[in-house]
Amino acid sequence: MFKDPRRQKQLYILIQKLGLPAAAPVNWSLLDLALTHPSVSRTHNYEQLEFVGDSVVRLVSAELLLEIYPQESVGEFAAIRSILVSDRVLAQLAESYGIEPYLTIGSNATGNPAGRQSWLADAFEAVLGALYLSTHNMDLIRPWLDRVLMTKAEEVRNDPARFNYKDALQEWTQRKYKILPEYKVAENKQPKSSLSKENLAQSAHLQSDRFVAEVWLQNRCLGKGYGHSKKASEQAAAKEAFLSIQNTEA
Amino acid sequence: MFKDPRRQKQLYILIQKLGLPAAAPVNWSLLDLALTHPSVSRTHNYEQLEFVGDSVVRLVSAELLLEIYPQESVGEFAAIRSILVSDRVLAQLAESYGIEPYLTIGSNATGNPAGRQSWLADAFEAVLGALYLSTHNMDLIRPWLDRVLMTKAEEVRNDPARFNYKDALQEWTQRKYKILPEYKVAENKQPKSSLSKENLAQSAHLQSDRFVAEVWLQNRCLGKGYGHSKKASEQAAAKEAFLSIQNTEA
Repeated sequence: MFKDPRRQKQLYILIQKLGLPAAAPVNWSLLDLALTHPSVSRTHNYEQLEFVGDSVVRLVSAELLLEIYPQESVGEFAAIRSILVSDRVLAQLAESYGIEPYLTIGSNATGNPAGRQSWLADAFEAVLGALYLSTHNMDLIRPWLDRVLMTKAEEVRNDPARFNYKDALQEWTQRKYKILPEYKVAENKQPKSSLSKENLAQSAHLQSDRFVAEVWLQNRCLGKGYGHSKKASEQAAAKEAFLSIQNTEA
Repeated sequence: MFKDPRRQKQLYILIQKLGLPAAAPVNWSLLDLALTHPSVSRTHNYEQLEFVGDSVVRLVSAELLLEIYPQESVGEFAAIRSILVSDRVLAQLAESYGIEPYLTIGSNATGNPAGRQSWLADAFEAVLGALYLSTHNMDLIRPWLDRVLMTKAEEVRNDPARFNYKDALQEWTQRKYKILPEYKVAENKQPKSSLSKENLAQSAHLQSDRFVAEVWLQNRCLGKGYGHSKKASEQAAAKEAFLSIQNTEA
């Protein structure tokens, strides 16, 4: 039970929104802490639970991906997971479960909309941390989180454009070699020869080739790509690198 | 039970080396797979279990650090954990439990001693993955792993020089801002003014000031450091940055 009956009632409602019974063995103090933004207290806030929760969602994702795609390479797992555990997706999940009204946050922090995605994601991770620490297993998490992560994983697989290949590649090189890939971007002085041919796609091609990027891992060029912006060319290079690694590993 | 009685016997012995009873509810096929190097089979090897086990050791470390140092900042947690889950430490643990003789590995791979630390660490993570997936909780892991992680965490705390501040800082900026710090290193043309004073430490100082590094996060310089090598100056800059962040967060 919890000191403040109104707060206890709020937490009961939240737990039921997640799909858990009100009688679930939740550590209510931890759940309350998970919903306390650092703007409220510098010492008594969700940061430690977020640290635990970040590992929880990574482990649940790993476990789930292995269960639903047992034939996939770890490169594919890492790529999908990097999206599942991104701030963008975790903040979406926090929103879909309506966590925001239960979050205690200082007015100076709510005034900064740019930070909103970040603290929604942080609070969601902290809630996962609190639920994990309530039972020291995934019993209060997987019964509801599996379904939404599975849906999201399917979305990612069905739409390769959702992939952030730079993130996926970085995740892979860090895990495998403990180093980061480096990008070299330049203005593309020599448009591809195909551009000299007359066709309708020509101008679009021309624009999308303004920059050329290479991605290097130590002394090895892993991929090359073109794009209308520096960022787009880097993503294209990362994509080529990532897909070639996938083929080598498979 | 397991298809090959000799292999089963080996796995029993290994489990007992870890301090678990032979009757522990281990999924023996998974444990066997955790000890199969990719050089043996491109599809049937420890890689997927290593992916799960990497998250397992991160979660166990987070949980344990919160239990034993409840007053510490997450910055300190992240710094200690980055060492606990490093290849160096995980390979040490693999060695201390004598895992190597049970690893099935192709002779072409054993011929490469440089890779040894890496595959010992990978196999150790994979074993953790197999034990976690045997019960879907930490029951086969924390009873023996807690003690060694705790000892290692104490070692790290008692000897700040063990810290890899670059790793710790990187872990922090990635978690917080999803970006990496950048280092700018130059030859130190202007030795610190203190060096003009005559004292015994002078020549040592001079040597340790050969390079100067700055570490930047986007447009902000987080720290500056000197060292006898580029790497040492980067570590010094990372240390200054990391400690100032710690103070701001505390």
